[in-house]
Amino acid sequence: MKTIKIEINLLLRFTGILLFFSSLTISAQDNAKYINPFIGTDHMGHTFPGALVPFGMVQLSPDTDTIPYSSGSGYNPDVYKYCAGYQYNDPTIVGFSHTHLHGTGHSDLGDFLIMPIEGKIMLNPGTADHPEKGYRSKYDKSTEIAKAGYYSVVLTKNNIKAELTATQRVGVHRYHFPMKETPAIILDMVHGIYNYDGKVVWSSLRVENDSTVTGYRQTNGWARDRKVYFALVFSKPIKQYGIINADKETYNGFWRRWKMDKEFPERSGKKIKAWFQFNMQNDSTLTLRLALSSVSAQGALKNLRTETPKPNFEKIKEQAYNAWKNEVNTINIEASDEEKRVFYTAMYHSLIHPSIYMDVDGQYRGLDQEIYKADGFTNYTIFSLWDTFRALHPWLTLTHPQETSDMVNSMLAHANQSVHKILPIWSHWSNDNWCMIGYHAVPVIADAMAKQIKGFNYSDALSTMVKSATYAPYEGLEHYMKYGFVAQEQSGSSASVTLEYAYDDYTISQAALLIGKNDIADKFAKRSLNYLNVFDPSTKFMRAKKSNGHFTKPFDALATHDMGYIEGNAWTYSLFVPHNPKKLIELYGGEKNFCNHLDSLFTMELPAKYYEKTEDIAAVGLMGNYVHGNEPGHHIPYLYNYAGKPKATQAIVRKILTTMYHNTPSGLCGNDDCGQMSAWFIFSSLGFYPVCPGTPNYDLGAPLYRKIELLLPNNNLLTIKANKLSSKNIYVKKVLLNGQEIKDHNITHQQILNGGLLEFEMTSEQ
Amino acid sequence: MKTIKIEINLLLRFTGILLFFSSLTISAQDNAKYINPFIGTDHMGHTFPGALVPFGMVQLSPDTDTIPYSSGSGYNPDVYKYCAGYQYNDPTIVGFSHTHLHGTGHSDLGDFLIMPIEGKIMLNPGTADHPEKGYRSKYDKSTEIAKAGYYSVVLTKNNIKAELTATQRVGVHRYHFPMKETPAIILDMVHGIYNYDGKVVWSSLRVENDSTVTGYRQTNGWARDRKVYFALVFSKPIKQYGIINADKETYNGFWRRWKMDKEFPERSGKKIKAWFQFNMQNDSTLTLRLALSSVSAQGALKNLRTETPKPNFEKIKEQAYNAWKNEVNTINIEASDEEKRVFYTAMYHSLIHPSIYMDVDGQYRGLDQEIYKADGFTNYTIFSLWDTFRALHPWLTLTHPQETSDMVNSMLAHANQSVHKILPIWSHWSNDNWCMIGYHAVPVIADAMAKQIKGFNYSDALSTMVKSATYAPYEGLEHYMKYGFVAQEQSGSSASVTLEYAYDDYTISQAALLIGKNDIADKFAKRSLNYLNVFDPSTKFMRAKKSNGHFTKPFDALATHDMGYIEGNAWTYSLFVPHNPKKLIELYGGEKNFCNHLDSLFTMELPAKYYEKTEDIAAVGLMGNYVHGNEPGHHIPYLYNYAGKPKATQAIVRKILTTMYHNTPSGLCGNDDCGQMSAWFIFSSLGFYPVCPGTPNYDLGAPLYRKIELLLPNNNLLTIKANKLSSKNIYVKKVLLNGQEIKDHNITHQQILNGGLLEFEMTSEQ
Repeated sequence: MKTIKIEINLLLRFTGILLFFSSLTISAQDNAKYINPFIGTDHMGHTFPGALVPFGMVQLSPDTDTIPYSSGSGYNPDVYKYCAGYQYNDPTIVGFSHTHLHGTGHSDLGDFLIMPIEGKIMLNPGTADHPEKGYRSKYDKSTEIAKAGYYSVVLTKNNIKAELTATQRVGVHRYHFPMKETPAIILDMVHGIYNYDGKVVWSSLRVENDSTVTGYRQTNGWARDRKVYFALVFSKPIKQYGIINADKETYNGFWRRWKMDKEFPERSGKKIKAWFQFNMQNDSTLTLRLALSSVSAQGALKNLRTETPKPNFEKIKEQAYNAWKNEVNTINIEASDEEKRVFYTAMYHSLIHPSIYMDVDGQYRGLDQEIYKADGFTNYTIFSLWDTFRALHPWLTLTHPQETSDMVNSMLAHANQSVHKILPIWSHWSNDNWCMIGYHAVPVIADAMAKQIKGFNYSDALSTMVKSATYAPYEGLEHYMKYGFVAQEQSGSSASVTLEYAYDDYTISQAALLIGKNDIADKFAKRSLNYLNVFDPSTKFMRAKKSNGHFTKPFDALATHDMGYIEGNAWTYSLFVPHNPKKLIELYGGEKNFCNHLDSLFTMELPAKYYEKTEDIAAVGLMGNYVHGNEPGHHIPYLYNYAGKPKATQAIVRKILTTMYHNTPSGLCGNDDCGQMSAWFIFSSLGFYPVCPGTPNYDLGAPLYRKIELLLPNNNLLTIKANKLSSKNIYVKKVLLNGQEIKDHNITHQQILNGGLLEFEMTSEQ
Repeated sequence: MKTIKIEINLLLRFTGILLFFSSLTISAQDNAKYINPFIGTDHMGHTFPGALVPFGMVQLSPDTDTIPYSSGSGYNPDVYKYCAGYQYNDPTIVGFSHTHLHGTGHSDLGDFLIMPIEGKIMLNPGTADHPEKGYRSKYDKSTEIAKAGYYSVVLTKNNIKAELTATQRVGVHRYHFPMKETPAIILDMVHGIYNYDGKVVWSSLRVENDSTVTGYRQTNGWARDRKVYFALVFSKPIKQYGIINADKETYNGFWRRWKMDKEFPERSGKKIKAWFQFNMQNDSTLTLRLALSSVSAQGALKNLRTETPKPNFEKIKEQAYNAWKNEVNTINIEASDEEKRVFYTAMYHSLIHPSIYMDVDGQYRGLDQEIYKADGFTNYTIFSLWDTFRALHPWLTLTHPQETSDMVNSMLAHANQSVHKILPIWSHWSNDNWCMIGYHAVPVIADAMAKQIKGFNYSDALSTMVKSATYAPYEGLEHYMKYGFVAQEQSGSSASVTLEYAYDDYTISQAALLIGKNDIADKFAKRSLNYLNVFDPSTKFMRAKKSNGHFTKPFDALATHDMGYIEGNAWTYSLFVPHNPKKLIELYGGEKNFCNHLDSLFTMELPAKYYEKTEDIAAVGLMGNYVHGNEPGHHIPYLYNYAGKPKATQAIVRKILTTMYHNTPSGLCGNDDCGQMSAWFIFSSLGFYPVCPGTPNYDLGAPLYRKIELLLPNNNLLTIKANKLSSKNIYVKKVLLNGQEIKDHNITHQQILNGGLLEFEMTSEQ
């Protein structure tokens, strides 16, 4: 029973015991074998190939370079490639670190780098050109394997085979040493992603006994005040070790009675690195378990002991694989293996973030750096909400109601802990990194309410949403509340900000209606019209205004910078009225004009100067002036639906699905943005998409595959068929839900949850 | 009933409620009025004049300068004067900070400096010469008042009257503003004692609401990894504020949407300072309560709300005064007011450290930086054990059995949390600063056992003592265990270290005997003879040996440096066999020779070159070659007792008591060393002294006053009389305890506890 499985999983999450049941699936097949973690690891996808379990706190993965975020002369643009620590074509591996962001466009983390070596102890990483000058190594690309929950590679410097797997909170390493020289493990507490000199404000290491090491580090990065603890257990006793602090130690004098650099079991400072040699006992294999905690080293140790009571690498690897199998086996598609690799990897990528952020006993570090115990929910972090409110969260709302409830509770807890008392903008390991704009926790919660997710208090949720939407000091909000738009003086992205506030406000009004708070509903319904205040009838674009109410000049509809937009230009952002496409079409002079406008968007040539300096937009992510690699346009392909041209939607969506997602390392056309790009793919390939999260509706497109079986969390089965689908028959003639024709382009959440048969009759007729 | 009072106090400590009972005292008089916190604030006493309660975690006191511990060129010797943050003759006050060490010879702390100002906001302290360039101020010396639990001064820059008082965990400030310009409070999170650029590795500040501010800082100082949290509540609402970070903020870009420097409620970094202006509501008085915690800001807030539910300055001040009165009223002396000021201030100084180190709910940060809950005891920190095992702890063992039990439990917890599993050397706010030598937690615990203190497990205690005494990596201990002495190659203080280990070992043997562990007793009794291994019969001095067993050369019996001693020379350290003076006398060729040797020590002229470069030794602390300002000799005046010349002991002790302790700011002849110098004074002035802590015996001297009443913790009264005492009658003819003559120079702990009448018949006959 699916329901039982969910409850057991929940139980397991709380007890921290990882047992996996043979899950109820649609058929006995194994879809996890199609997962290809290398997709997106080349160039712009910003994905990592390492090992993790769904929503796992640990993302154990190889890092292939150490480009600093900034040097003396400021931001270093080369660092951008290393948002996930890994570039597919890099020749060397620096080591294996335990935390990674999936698909972000800025970065952090990379905690507690482990590297196995043989022979001479070197504590610096060396360089890609000269790996021999440090602990890093070239690797044999042909040996590199990445699967669901498993990664393996042979490091050629010493011919050491490295294997990685993970539980929710524990990274598990197995190293096979040729034993030609003395094997050793390097632990580099300074290494990090988007590192810079001084990023580690403090760190500490303790050798607790002959096989256990604990410690923590505190970093000042994208998360400005971040603390992460670990406990590390080796499968063999330590024979010799050393902890080095490469920093000046003002007060080391009092340790004068010991030689600190060797066999001294405790050290703290800003540049701590350590090496360990082992009593190998005539066995060339060493297993490491490294558990994380945001609370304490004791918490990490508890996580380690609970989730990996024994260093049984094979068993843990199997558990990790099964955890993924249970997830991806909820959907079957009739498709080629290559298509399956793309599809199931998209599913995999949609289940990485948000990440579990609490110890097995429920304790976690709150936004105010205080320790909390999650009361009746699992706490999560890594909410990249500007990206993920669009499709990733609606996807989880549909398929993971318990996790969605937990995520809402996590965001409400965040707001309670916030000094501003507002919901997260970008929740990041007990910090808000304030990245991007809007208050998009609001549509995520409104969506959960609209779709009747249980497990959180709707009334509390609404009042917290209202607080976020009325916190005057936040980006231009005071002006917005007074004058109905954000002025360019208050925000360089004022047009985008105004449009997104208006949409967010609409979702508040919907949520308020749901629970009968009509005064709030009215107030925010009114605010939701504020997009009208930035519409310029003369240019037919939504434009930035100065506080005096005049549009800013000069104006270039193709430019993003200095025009009041962010990650989009006038063409893209002017279409951001997901809550009222009908009105938008009216502003554009009716359906025909609007469709022409959309046609222009998708076919016009965008001169290179508008994107060549923009990090995010690979040429492959461009379709005319539509940029799939950035999020503001993700709903646009579906807008033809509202202007009487659903077949244009079907065609454009299919073109994006088939040309911008591939089973290759460079198979993503932009950053996966914590799974948003992947979630867009999953929804669209199933044949429906949430154009306006916060309402219980999806827009119909067309399925990418002939037959899809979707096992719903209520244990209903929805079978989706695309009858007569072929390379030519890509248009939808008719849609039948359980035999009843759907006349418009809409399907409701409840209709999907009811399951049954959703049939698309495909045709070549445009 | 005294017993009841103790129990209630205990209860109150656990609940954190500070209610003060009119304590049972000997008579109705108020001895607290004699307490003069200025004693020792000039030059070398390293005391502070601010407000605190007995054993309080908060020591709220003015800091009069900001000399850095080190600058580019290393250690700055001028900083030494500012170990307690204050020098009596300094012309300016920088502000009032919440933590101070009492009488140490190295330093730290000075957390969360508060300064009241009027007018222009300046966030730098300015200089002593140019206070107008910063927030610091000159002050009117004639207005400066320091009493038990209270400090007050008028800051002349703006004519602001400042008043300070405290509870155990809360510093309470009251400022009276002339209101000529806008009043403001400066909060400087960078300020500190023994500060240096970079000492604050991280800090954070949050304005929680219109009157509450929380935050923390983490410092890398004498305590290398120290975290201290606070909660601050103002009695009036904040009108305007600003939080400034003077440091480069690599990641401040994401806050671009706000002006961070004003009205932004949260900031973290390395150089955080803040200012607050208030809605004064036509009242010129502002009260601040600032609570500390080692655990969290929430812990601090709980401490604040529990200990100071209201900002009633007068009541809190009265409570603080009464807490001191309850302590000092346990002893009455017949003496002049001037003598009483010296005596009761010594009592006051003996009750500052160790300091309570846990929140009202029992939580505290352990040595491993993890959070613990004290189970059945009150946790303490600040154990300067090399100093305090001699007299301060024996004094507490006699007068504060409950606190002594708590302190032992605190040290046992420290050992459990230690990566080395050893007892503290110098326990310092969740750190061991490893200052000085020996393992002198051992004699403190042995002393508590010998004196039958209840409340800790003797067997656990013994095994922890043994662990500390057998931890091979500790200063030369491996060599000591093998060869019976520490070699100079392993420790620059090898002679001192060997002698102190031997004594500590003796106390282990005594403790083991007590609980019938005869094998341990035998082993450590043997080790206690190791002092013999460094005795050089040719020079009659205890001397440093090389690992080959030869004494080091050259040898200068008057020198400390490079001779294998620390804070003492061959003359002093060679007499450090407190556990076997008889054998020592034998080594010196019998009583007569030994007495001649002691006479030489106390009368010889020590050439200035031997002490002029030594920070600690003010000329006034010298008596011949005996240095009272340093601890290794503190038992020496009592050694005449063992060589048949008790009258010499009586004369020398009296001379020290009357010439080296005065009721003046420069009234201490050396650092008070967390109360050790004061405890020496108290014991000696009562007429007995613990020459060998770890045994239940005291050596008799002679009382300094004609009549003393000592209320013991068991509620017995010991009356001590010095019949016929006069400036000439300073020798003891006969001692009677409850009418029975004491024939030797010894009185036991039990005899004292039994109370009654201890009569000294004084005479002028030598």
